[in-house]
Amino acid sequence: MLEETIAAIRPADPAALAEARAHQDRLTKPRGALGVLEEVAVRLAGAAGASPPPMPEPAALAIFAADHGVHAQGVSPWPQEVTQQMVGNFLAGGAVANAFAAQVGASVTVVDVGVAADLPPADGLLVRKLGYGTADLSEGPAMTAAQAVEALEAGISVARSLLDAGARCLITGDMGIANTTASAALICAFTGRDAAEVTGRGTGIDDETHAKKITIVRRALRVNKLPLDPLGTLAALGGFEHAAIAGFILGGAAARVPVILDGVIAGSAALAAAALAPAVADHLVAGHRSAEPGHAAALDHLGLRPLVDLELRLGEGTGGLLAHPLVCAAVRVMHEVATFDAAGVTDKTT
Amino acid sequence: MLEETIAAIRPADPAALAEARAHQDRLTKPRGALGVLEEVAVRLAGAAGASPPPMPEPAALAIFAADHGVHAQGVSPWPQEVTQQMVGNFLAGGAVANAFAAQVGASVTVVDVGVAADLPPADGLLVRKLGYGTADLSEGPAMTAAQAVEALEAGISVARSLLDAGARCLITGDMGIANTTASAALICAFTGRDAAEVTGRGTGIDDETHAKKITIVRRALRVNKLPLDPLGTLAALGGFEHAAIAGFILGGAAARVPVILDGVIAGSAALAAAALAPAVADHLVAGHRSAEPGHAAALDHLGLRPLVDLELRLGEGTGGLLAHPLVCAAVRVMHEVATFDAAGVTDKTT
Repeated sequence: MLEETIAAIRPADPAALAEARAHQDRLTKPRGALGVLEEVAVRLAGAAGASPPPMPEPAALAIFAADHGVHAQGVSPWPQEVTQQMVGNFLAGGAVANAFAAQVGASVTVVDVGVAADLPPADGLLVRKLGYGTADLSEGPAMTAAQAVEALEAGISVARSLLDAGARCLITGDMGIANTTASAALICAFTGRDAAEVTGRGTGIDDETHAKKITIVRRALRVNKLPLDPLGTLAALGGFEHAAIAGFILGGAAARVPVILDGVIAGSAALAAAALAPAVADHLVAGHRSAEPGHAAALDHLGLRPLVDLELRLGEGTGGLLAHPLVCAAVRVMHEVATFDAAGVTDKTT
Repeated sequence: MLEETIAAIRPADPAALAEARAHQDRLTKPRGALGVLEEVAVRLAGAAGASPPPMPEPAALAIFAADHGVHAQGVSPWPQEVTQQMVGNFLAGGAVANAFAAQVGASVTVVDVGVAADLPPADGLLVRKLGYGTADLSEGPAMTAAQAVEALEAGISVARSLLDAGARCLITGDMGIANTTASAALICAFTGRDAAEVTGRGTGIDDETHAKKITIVRRALRVNKLPLDPLGTLAALGGFEHAAIAGFILGGAAARVPVILDGVIAGSAALAAAALAPAVADHLVAGHRSAEPGHAAALDHLGLRPLVDLELRLGEGTGGLLAHPLVCAAVRVMHEVATFDAAGVTDKTT
């Protein structure tokens, strides 16, 4: 399933890109006046291979949840149990992601790819468990290559089932106490940046814990004998949710449906996806820029400009959800705005 | 009506601000993890005098349209007729503002406060005409003090009628070829900045026209013998739409309903409103930061941080409309997200 998905991913279609740019210039607005949103609409035309691109509605959020062996190193002030507690909160509709999803009309699916507990069955919960948390990435590979492939394929199959159910835009979400440590390690490995540059304070840690976190990221890179190939890197350093999100991204791109990335977890997963299938980046929208320093490094590497920049550092898909109305607005312009000719509006003198 | 409206505007309620901050800290998310959106929700609680504040839905966009005597100086590459042509486009539903309003579920009302032509009656058009364009602000006052009061009151009455019709959030919009010249002059007058610093390229002008525009702004300040009192400043330098938007802002604030500002036109109008009633700023949300340099200066002066920053330079209310889902999301968190206690989620160790 993984190979077939990667083979299906096409780069942006040059004819659709050109047609979308030309159409933007005929619309009743000064050329370029919609700034970054014009580029978003053009990108989505290229990704879809059609101008105008289809409206990216409705959206579906998938929150991939997992635990992390590296939590034992004391990289987070939150107990590991919070992962499963927050899954309960998502399923009960009480988290910020639920409120934001309700605001933008997105569905919410929670996928257990490796929570360190057996979760009771619930509506909206998919169980695709690869383990009860990863192994500690600072002592060896977080997972096996086989687990990484299985997690990628879990993400692909979630993408496919949401698309089959009618979703026309996918939004990445994540939950996993300690998962910013794995993200920082992945970002170091895929961008070549130093750990001190890309390791942040996650949900809020003190200076001492931050220094320890940087040391642990460095140790993870050393112990796992980086550099490795893309799949080896993902297996060595990623969480199960990172691998599943990478698959989810590949699954959306293969179906030419746009994927809105949330924050640093998604950004690091997207680096893995792009290492496996470089054309995937043409199908991505960076929902927001999180407060984590590694996120900007990941987006730079992917050539993506974030749409929302409000110092969010929550994860769950919250930044991706906030971007969805902006992406829809950008595409709606292509469908509904009149041209100078049609509206009888005089163009500017040149 | 103006005096009574100004007298009704109250500053943020300290008890509601404190309760909203405390509530944010009980919600199942790391403290501060929603960044700027937490501050938006707290602000709106203070403005409404209630925590949580009411949901700011549905929203109503009012596009105030007028022409400008200063257009004769050649400050814009667009013919003046485009103002009335774009009014026609709004009423036919073909402009970007219409597409964005449809995306966020906002109503659209166009108010002719001074277009240089008689417009045929149409659904969605209110005629509150104060003239066929202002006088040339670079040769003397753009309008009389009586006209400024009448325009302010037109804006107040539009706000009241939209609120009576059920709106729970007001969004400012504008249309008027050459109106960034008036905005730059108002921003100079109210912030003390130099014309070269705040005069931008509007919808797109060349270097020569830009230099001329700066000269004209300087001449307007000199010819009108600035400084003047707030009403005198608005009359000397503003467009009819600037004065009406200032009234619209005052009308929303008096009713404790949040007003989302669009770009530089709204920012300069808000400076006039705040000069008339300083507490008004507590009721405002800066929808976006436009590409016009004067806009940042206006927002700084008002103490507002913009939510959307995507290099838009269109006006019409487009930046305000894009911010509306973000504002709703911020407030929805206060209504719907579970507390740590209620959700059984363990708080972080401190």
